[in-house]
Amino acid sequence: MRRPGFSRRAFTGGAAAAAIAPAGLTAALRSTSEPAAAPRAEVRRITMYAENLPNGQLGYGLAPGEAQIPGPLLEMYEGDTLQIDLVNNADVAVSLHVHGVDYTIDSDGTRMTNSIVEPGESRLYTWNSHAPGTREDGTAIAGSAGYWNYHDHVVGTDHGTGGLQKGLYGPLVVRRQDDIVPDHQFTVVFNDMTTNNRTQAPNFTAKLGERCEFIVITHGELYHTFHVHGHRWADNRTGYLAGPDDTSQVIDNKICGPGDSFGFQVVAGENVGPGHWMYHCHVQSHSDMGMAGHFTVTRADGSVPGGDPGHGGHGADTAGAQRPADPAGSGHAHH
Amino acid sequence: MRRPGFSRRAFTGGAAAAAIAPAGLTAALRSTSEPAAAPRAEVRRITMYAENLPNGQLGYGLAPGEAQIPGPLLEMYEGDTLQIDLVNNADVAVSLHVHGVDYTIDSDGTRMTNSIVEPGESRLYTWNSHAPGTREDGTAIAGSAGYWNYHDHVVGTDHGTGGLQKGLYGPLVVRRQDDIVPDHQFTVVFNDMTTNNRTQAPNFTAKLGERCEFIVITHGELYHTFHVHGHRWADNRTGYLAGPDDTSQVIDNKICGPGDSFGFQVVAGENVGPGHWMYHCHVQSHSDMGMAGHFTVTRADGSVPGGDPGHGGHGADTAGAQRPADPAGSGHAHH
Amino acid sequence: MRRPGFSRRAFTGGAAAAAIAPAGLTAALRSTSEPAAAPRAEVRRITMYAENLPNGQLGYGLAPGEAQIPGPLLEMYEGDTLQIDLVNNADVAVSLHVHGVDYTIDSDGTRMTNSIVEPGESRLYTWNSHAPGTREDGTAIAGSAGYWNYHDHVVGTDHGTGGLQKGLYGPLVVRRQDDIVPDHQFTVVFNDMTTNNRTQAPNFTAKLGERCEFIVITHGELYHTFHVHGHRWADNRTGYLAGPDDTSQVIDNKICGPGDSFGFQVVAGENVGPGHWMYHCHVQSHSDMGMAGHFTVTRADGSVPGGDPGHGGHGADTAGAQRPADPAGSGHAHH
Ligand SMILES: [Cu+2]
Ligand SMILES: [Cu+2]
Ligand SMILES: [Cu+2]
Repeated sequence: MRRPGFSRRAFTGGAAAAAIAPAGLTAALRSTSEPAAAPRAEVRRITMYAENLPNGQLGYGLAPGEAQIPGPLLEMYEGDTLQIDLVNNADVAVSLHVHGVDYTIDSDGTRMTNSIVEPGESRLYTWNSHAPGTREDGTAIAGSAGYWNYHDHVVGTDHGTGGLQKGLYGPLVVRRQDDIVPDHQFTVVFNDMTTNNRTQAPNFTAKLGERCEFIVITHGELYHTFHVHGHRWADNRTGYLAGPDDTSQVIDNKICGPGDSFGFQVVAGENVGPGHWMYHCHVQSHSDMGMAGHFTVTRADGSVPGGDPGHGGHGADTAGAQRPADPAGSGHAHH
Repeated sequence: MRRPGFSRRAFTGGAAAAAIAPAGLTAALRSTSEPAAAPRAEVRRITMYAENLPNGQLGYGLAPGEAQIPGPLLEMYEGDTLQIDLVNNADVAVSLHVHGVDYTIDSDGTRMTNSIVEPGESRLYTWNSHAPGTREDGTAIAGSAGYWNYHDHVVGTDHGTGGLQKGLYGPLVVRRQDDIVPDHQFTVVFNDMTTNNRTQAPNFTAKLGERCEFIVITHGELYHTFHVHGHRWADNRTGYLAGPDDTSQVIDNKICGPGDSFGFQVVAGENVGPGHWMYHCHVQSHSDMGMAGHFTVTRADGSVPGGDPGHGGHGADTAGAQRPADPAGSGHAHH
Repeated sequence: MRRPGFSRRAFTGGAAAAAIAPAGLTAALRSTSEPAAAPRAEVRRITMYAENLPNGQLGYGLAPGEAQIPGPLLEMYEGDTLQIDLVNNADVAVSLHVHGVDYTIDSDGTRMTNSIVEPGESRLYTWNSHAPGTREDGTAIAGSAGYWNYHDHVVGTDHGTGGLQKGLYGPLVVRRQDDIVPDHQFTVVFNDMTTNNRTQAPNFTAKLGERCEFIVITHGELYHTFHVHGHRWADNRTGYLAGPDDTSQVIDNKICGPGDSFGFQVVAGENVGPGHWMYHCHVQSHSDMGMAGHFTVTRADGSVPGGDPGHGGHGADTAGAQRPADPAGSGHAHH
């Protein structure tokens, strides 16, 4: 995979970055035969804010008054450390529990480990990550790369059931150093009968040929099946085949349950052209009740062939009133 | 993998085939570094008929009066184009939406894109497919090969919930040029509490040593777990391991939800011998309520050891009255 | 992968072992181009007892009066044969049906094949296994290695729904000759709203750096998502990556349904250190209602940093009163 110029994606928020070694863990915890930190490892420190939102919802944001649902897209490269000061401006104790990356027990985000944040207080959570390596006994260490998610683990119950219902969740992408960087990123969180806590799923737009990354997360009680029209992906770590010998199943529909997350990249309209391509949960009552949106692929001039998505039951576009946490934006699309 | 003689399977129906280049897409849509069409690419044109069936059901068929549930097994090789004239002889508007292959937005089969068929009318749907390739930037393009499915996307709701309930669905297999061709093919569609819209799952039969392909599809509201006794498969694209380095999990039970499809091949009775081998959904109430049938593996002389499947709650054989759409056949087995 | 000394794990129970060829199948059933039995193949014969347990439950055990839920952990190497005399000391007919390994139809454990055991009687079940190989036509034969499960298939219904509800199930691990042998093994069976038929999931303990194997099985009606904090695994056969080219998704959360089983190994506390790490079903109501326990990773001296698991709703340790079938033990941990 080429990686032209290796221009790291500029990071959301004004995070300070420093090319120093991760300090979170002692050397004793790391496997010793292979350095876990890759050469380009960075330590970044950011601040996240938990806030009350209208209609009893809760959200995470990167600045006061900017909480959104889903929470901000966080990204790391393998080897990076992300230090997050979580400021709790909400009226209940909240926490930050993350999947996939490395953290000591005091960053677990559970009440049992006293790693939660009372209203008006703040707490530092440190997430480390590591590149693939080899143990002293010759066995392989998997790297941290993956499409992960973070969420509250304390509101309502000891498993954060209330926090998840109200919107305290977000995506985390950890990339391998030579993973392909997309042009657009779209986050879809199936949270019970909502998508991103909205009763109508958001719409996404890209130009023909642009590389689009979907990050799909599930929370709550229900299982779902994510489906997108006209595009498909590989059921492996990256969502694309490593090469002709990669035997992964190529799919366009995937079952997922609470806590699961996966991601993939597609080239918008590749082999199929522009159009309003539906994406939806394929559980029939779920799509019928609003868990369906459009992945609109435009021509270079912005035009789109085919029908008008304003008809046929898929009328809400991304400025719909049902996205209380993101009034300015386009669903949870990242450009 | 050997492919002795490369004798393509004769195609169901009297489809005209011509070894010309696919005309469905302009060159501009295709990736340019590698021709998407393989050398053996064919363009075939067939006619499908949507029809009313007894008890309010609906089906697809390859000739008038021959609609069946599931719809006909369609097969392509990567690079092939399949042009389908869908004639709607039913009393409601229907459509044809397909998973996995390439089509422009006017073949999407959705009301929003006006690609549906009113009663008494017909419409051409064009499905293209492509071999694996490489993009100009060096990244891999996955081929179209897979165990896919097609279905209505308009009856009842904008997602075809009514069409799926009534039987408007079928299997599509796209093979890589050197994939192994089986001796038998069995389609199992878990559609809510039915199998192939029957309350009693069909039975399948093969001789010891014959290569059998299962195509498993799920529709509706419920998740299921497909299980077969005495046989197992690889959880990858083909269902069999590419070789000793293929790390795919080997399984005999797989969770699947609406819209999912997968397939695999087994050698009947390999390492276990002949017998009436159950296959069933492993959700206990589902198997107890009829989502269980037999994969009967006979000796060369047709005899079978062990118990009589007529006892023990699995009495209905493939001539059972509950298969309204396939009175002559053996479930949805293809020989 | 190194395999220092190749010391086979001592087998549970006083099973007789003999390094002779498996006798279960005739040569005619086996693929002929590659011997299915590996050089180290053993034939072992053990006795299992089905028994009534308090509160109407049922269990399998390796000695009279020692039935437990889950049933005993059985292990084989590819090529081994396991002969099991099942003695039915319970008051209903029971059977033994196994996933993943090879057996003729008379060991299927179904009423239809008359392979069940009436109260007061016994029956021999023979499980064979085989190493990977190649068929005469050059195609790959998958080996029997995997994280499998066995269970009753006759109590209550022809699919053993009653037997599964009452506790007649257990884990089976089949290893490839060079698979890594863990220091600890933990079995987690999500059986409807219970874990190992207990309303409170058991806790497990290991020292920092010890290799721990989780075997996760699902039964009943419901789907679940298995999640463990601070540790992750590869979604492939072994649960660990074969090497840097293995493209399997690395996960810490997996959806599973009835009949499914999978397993993986983690190095306790690797990159994250000691602590009381939760494991739980990530379906929110399930974890809230008791499908959550601790994977406690201790320092070398046995101490553990962080909170006290006795608080926060995860108070029951492995000696809890809710494990009727295993009063002396530590959940279903194998040391
Ligand atoms: Cu859904
Ligand atoms: Cu089912
Ligand atoms: Cu659960």
